[in-house]
Amino acid sequence: MAENTPAASTSGETRPAGTPAHSAGDQYTIGVDYGTLSGRAVVVRVSDGAELASSVYDYPHAVMDTTLTAGGRNTPLPPDWALQVPQDYVDVLKHAVPEAVQKAGIDPSQVIGIGTDFTACTMVPTIADGTPLNELPEFADRPHAYVKLWKHHSAQPHADRINELAHERGEAWINRYGGLISSEWEFAKGLQLLEDDRELYDRMDHWVEAADWIIWQLSGRYVRNACTAGYKGIYQDGQYPSHDFLAALNPDFASFADDKVAHEIGELGAAAGTLTAEAAAWTGLPEGIAVAVGNVDAHVTAPAAQATQPGQMVAIMGTSTCHVMNHDHLAEVPGMCGVVDGGIVAGLYGYEAGQSGVGDIFAWYVKNQVPARYFEAADDAGTSIHQHLTNLAFEEPVGAHGLVALDWHSGNRSVLVDHELSGVIVGETLTTRTEEIYRALLESTAFGTRVIVETFAEAGVPVTEFIVAGGLLKNPQLMQCYSDVLRLPISTIASEQGPALGSAIHAAVAAGAYPDIRHAADAMGKLDRAVYTPNEEAALAYDRLFAEYSLLHDYFGRGANDAMKRLRALKREAHLSKETPSEKETRA
Amino acid sequence: MAENTPAASTSGETRPAGTPAHSAGDQYTIGVDYGTLSGRAVVVRVSDGAELASSVYDYPHAVMDTTLTAGGRNTPLPPDWALQVPQDYVDVLKHAVPEAVQKAGIDPSQVIGIGTDFTACTMVPTIADGTPLNELPEFADRPHAYVKLWKHHSAQPHADRINELAHERGEAWINRYGGLISSEWEFAKGLQLLEDDRELYDRMDHWVEAADWIIWQLSGRYVRNACTAGYKGIYQDGQYPSHDFLAALNPDFASFADDKVAHEIGELGAAAGTLTAEAAAWTGLPEGIAVAVGNVDAHVTAPAAQATQPGQMVAIMGTSTCHVMNHDHLAEVPGMCGVVDGGIVAGLYGYEAGQSGVGDIFAWYVKNQVPARYFEAADDAGTSIHQHLTNLAFEEPVGAHGLVALDWHSGNRSVLVDHELSGVIVGETLTTRTEEIYRALLESTAFGTRVIVETFAEAGVPVTEFIVAGGLLKNPQLMQCYSDVLRLPISTIASEQGPALGSAIHAAVAAGAYPDIRHAADAMGKLDRAVYTPNEEAALAYDRLFAEYSLLHDYFGRGANDAMKRLRALKREAHLSKETPSEKETRA
Repeated sequence: MAENTPAASTSGETRPAGTPAHSAGDQYTIGVDYGTLSGRAVVVRVSDGAELASSVYDYPHAVMDTTLTAGGRNTPLPPDWALQVPQDYVDVLKHAVPEAVQKAGIDPSQVIGIGTDFTACTMVPTIADGTPLNELPEFADRPHAYVKLWKHHSAQPHADRINELAHERGEAWINRYGGLISSEWEFAKGLQLLEDDRELYDRMDHWVEAADWIIWQLSGRYVRNACTAGYKGIYQDGQYPSHDFLAALNPDFASFADDKVAHEIGELGAAAGTLTAEAAAWTGLPEGIAVAVGNVDAHVTAPAAQATQPGQMVAIMGTSTCHVMNHDHLAEVPGMCGVVDGGIVAGLYGYEAGQSGVGDIFAWYVKNQVPARYFEAADDAGTSIHQHLTNLAFEEPVGAHGLVALDWHSGNRSVLVDHELSGVIVGETLTTRTEEIYRALLESTAFGTRVIVETFAEAGVPVTEFIVAGGLLKNPQLMQCYSDVLRLPISTIASEQGPALGSAIHAAVAAGAYPDIRHAADAMGKLDRAVYTPNEEAALAYDRLFAEYSLLHDYFGRGANDAMKRLRALKREAHLSKETPSEKETRA
Repeated sequence: MAENTPAASTSGETRPAGTPAHSAGDQYTIGVDYGTLSGRAVVVRVSDGAELASSVYDYPHAVMDTTLTAGGRNTPLPPDWALQVPQDYVDVLKHAVPEAVQKAGIDPSQVIGIGTDFTACTMVPTIADGTPLNELPEFADRPHAYVKLWKHHSAQPHADRINELAHERGEAWINRYGGLISSEWEFAKGLQLLEDDRELYDRMDHWVEAADWIIWQLSGRYVRNACTAGYKGIYQDGQYPSHDFLAALNPDFASFADDKVAHEIGELGAAAGTLTAEAAAWTGLPEGIAVAVGNVDAHVTAPAAQATQPGQMVAIMGTSTCHVMNHDHLAEVPGMCGVVDGGIVAGLYGYEAGQSGVGDIFAWYVKNQVPARYFEAADDAGTSIHQHLTNLAFEEPVGAHGLVALDWHSGNRSVLVDHELSGVIVGETLTTRTEEIYRALLESTAFGTRVIVETFAEAGVPVTEFIVAGGLLKNPQLMQCYSDVLRLPISTIASEQGPALGSAIHAAVAAGAYPDIRHAADAMGKLDRAVYTPNEEAALAYDRLFAEYSLLHDYFGRGANDAMKRLRALKREAHLSKETPSEKETRA
């Protein structure tokens, strides 16, 4: 999940330069992008997708990952927890939406619809009317009553059991997810809730994606969006995992899908309903305008980048990279995150893949491996440390550093689906320079992408255009490197707020301004085509480095040498050995 | 070769605390240690090895590796050259020796002998009387007329030809050097001289180790020491490489050994002669005192550490590590640097092995991979950056970092003998800390040592005691790590100037104060026994990391994946591609 971490709270941005003045006859939609730490509202003109103004609102409770700060008691949380407060999402509607409208200088009556996108799989436990459990006073101090954010990772043992059983029983759906479902997803987190806090599990009527919960708040209707239902809810070919399967995990889990998960599915771009009087009061928008079915930040970016045709792969490159692509037929791609019918655009199969570490590897390196003199030189040059290192490193021809790295510092999502993997650098000498290793890390992520692109091609769903969105597209040498490594032209999204634009596009379709997402994307999406094209000489040299990457990828990643897993095991044991007896008891 | 880089020029040190006052009846010897950048003279009491005073003198011309600054013209040098000026060595005698004697407060008449040790293989081309070619005015601007320092590495192609031919012809001597002779050695450098500057080659009467050339200056006699003759001069079982072999390399090289290299051999500890009147005037020492046969810095350290018995391995740990060990029988150890009869102590076989990068890997890391906050914290704590990183890293139990590294940033000397190898780090994650990688590098050098120790044992010459000399012994956590990894007690030399002390021991034997090196070492050498002993719990955890090291060692080092060689090849090609046409022409 690409994180969105704006710097300032409730900071409206100025109108983009070159945006034509708007007229009284124009229509607008609002797109709201819910990130990990904040929500962003953007006012978009329906006719051409012009982004008039935006406003960001930081969640007051941010992410609670060590202590439950809400609920009146500061309760410590176990490792790998990550909670949020649902009311924070409503606060975004109350603050960011009206501020964006005001900055845009439009009349709210010109707004014809609102759409949202959310991190996934971020789960809200609610009672029948949609009230989150944490808002029931008797549960306010119970961690399991709160939202489990996508990066709440403590349900890994539950995910492991689900995966093992699925393969044991030969469940067909497991291959729609590259062979593994994640601890982040609905069923793993649901099983954890059942087994860790039975009272709350029993009290919960619905296990709701936050993407759908916020739409419920806006429209008063609970509609499951087809995207998260498929990618995170294991909804395939019209059904969820079977009663038998769930009972085999835990007899009390048998009716989980029927009782807590299953609900009306809404197609992407459809209207879930219309804005309620209460939500109209929060947002200052007209009651009764269209509210689009919920959606996910990565997937909603595809139409914002005009990527609605088969074979167009959109890479949202941030701390991690999420790849989404439509295709016209169903294929089982090893190691993908998932394939969902209508998961991105209705009528096509939507594929998703991912690299679990990209920008966060570069950030880790800059924080932990870069001496002071580089920061000083970057300051002197008036550039960022990342761009400074990039500039130095790319003065040299491909391969001049003599290095190859594996980009697994945060594990490997696609195509190995193994969080126990870790990073590698090969080729360091006493003359290796700081910026050379930085470049090797940049390149390693391009090689990781090439593995994904080649795997899709081999599975019969080839990538024909590579489109980049997200924060990393601002590094031109990195983009050129990707083009050379992939031997593909790189197109770039021409919006800095792609997810919010994508949500506004869905709102326009939900409001009936366009017949479908494709037409809306053609008019409102923004793409600069083939900004970078492959350089053949560089591509040939990168082929040689990629050959080394591939050898190491398979050696460390496919069982020839499980050193990384043994090193992790030793690490865990070593850390456990440090615990006091009482710490050990607590953990047990 | 462990480098000796003292900070100050001609800086006398104070007398070691606790040294008893000397009396008029005491006898002294002078040990002079010739390092890469300076020479150090030490005054040592013969009865007990007390080091009374020392003085260091920096070579005025230091190392000439980019430009020939001597000879009146600044001539640029090709890559991988490293030259010195012989007169600089004489200047050490003129400055450091009298100053050390004066600081010691002794009467020069109490000095009964002088001994020296030198970097090896550092070669002086001379005419018949020992005058270096560069001192003949007509050759003063010719690079090949100067001393070729040990780390002059441009004779690699010549070494390659020697090795290839030796294996082709099945020369028995090649296995005495672990299967490969080095570009640093006499025959490779001699072949380069023949083929690159024939006029100088023909004018040269002797190709003299600097270790012997300085003794020639002191005593007026040219005696080849048994150590460098064997380790660097391929003198085995009483003979040099054959006429036929040399002719096959180059017909004009056929009589190289007979004409330029062969000369009277002197046993270590014997007297080469007595101090000449001229050298007495330089040094202020009495004419006629004993001058010991020349020696090498690493080897001479063995008696200084009382390591004269079979199975005692001395590791001189500095920028690199040199291992020397006596044993009572001859074995061919794969990947050792050499075995020489009487190469360390007369009457035993002297074995040498080496790790080409140790302290310089740690220095490279600190310079290129450590952020400012660590330097600030080290300053605040009043400790060195190395010790600060060590302190942080060793707060954690073994394996808590989840990392394993290969210590090949400067290639691998023993046991793989491959300078094309390079460094590796496996296991980095987004939570890996700077000091954890530093520790993994420290550990990797311990694992490299374990490979050497195990290889010696497997070849039938087991290591029974591990003795550390050199600058790195001041890091206690590193020493404990070595003890745990090797499962051997670590003894440490109790002198900070081991080579100079060792030379003084040789001088005492040459002067007849002791019957042989063993007796002198027992009286004058200084060893703290078993300062570090293995911790079984740590050793067990290190066994697991060593198992990972071994797998990677063989994978990258023994041909399963020659990635490092291919990366080097690509690096060389990439750098060549940057050259201008005229640069390419010059190089060709």
